[in-house]
Amino acid sequence: MDTSEPYVVHPIGVVRSALREPSDAPNQAYEGAPDAVLEIDPAFEDALHLVQAGDELIVLTWLHLADRDVLQTHPTGDTSIPLTGVFRTRSPDRPNPIGVHRVTVTALEGPTSVRVGALEAIDGTPIVDLKVALRSPQAP
Amino acid sequence: MDTSEPYVVHPIGVVRSALREPSDAPNQAYEGAPDAVLEIDPAFEDALHLVQAGDELIVLTWLHLADRDVLQTHPTGDTSIPLTGVFRTRSPDRPNPIGVHRVTVTALEGPTSVRVGALEAIDGTPIVDLKVALRSPQAP
Repeated sequence: MDTSEPYVVHPIGVVRSALREPSDAPNQAYEGAPDAVLEIDPAFEDALHLVQAGDELIVLTWLHLADRDVLQTHPTGDTSIPLTGVFRTRSPDRPNPIGVHRVTVTALEGPTSVRVGALEAIDGTPIVDLKVALRSPQAP
Repeated sequence: MDTSEPYVVHPIGVVRSALREPSDAPNQAYEGAPDAVLEIDPAFEDALHLVQAGDELIVLTWLHLADRDVLQTHPTGDTSIPLTGVFRTRSPDRPNPIGVHRVTVTALEGPTSVRVGALEAIDGTPIVDLKVALRSPQAP
């Protein structure tokens, strides 16, 4: 199978958060994550055009502390749950450690600083993409 | 801002679909996309452990035909909609062209062949990650 061609991701920004360590971060945003600021590289200011408070966005991050060699894990670290393929979990440890987070924009704090609601990524996590969230509850 | 460190994505599989050209593909899966097969590299068979029919997964793809230099677009190609930053759209054209798709597994057709419901990615699109979808309708 020709899946060998690599692609290069250049981060477009970074997460600023009170969460400093992975051990501080909840597994999912709805488990009590704080708000955060998406500091976008000014080179991409035009790509934020029309983003405004109230928008629901999908944030893709690069989970830079992840172990890319892990293929199976106990979900949420609970060893009473059987070992599961990482493709059926939300573990940060996976071959391409891209995080998917749904957030609500609460304020624009500058032309490239976007404050968002609960986000479980730690301070310094690279951001690789933003998208508008779809309205259908079944859509990502 | 230190967003300059690049990261390398190695695809973990490829989409097999009756959709052959971008012009054939709907903008979103719920607009009439056909089912598809996720052909995962056998090197990652262990990472599929416990994936089964009925699972809802998030599929991340690399939109290999995208234009990475585009920062603004008319959503859905409709020029009556004002130019919008790509970070507030679902356009495939964006700095890091990663697609996010929510699908339901309909069958396992082999140890590393996963048939899924409606998927708007064209045949040959590289797959870079799979995750279990969260149950909350507000979660990605």
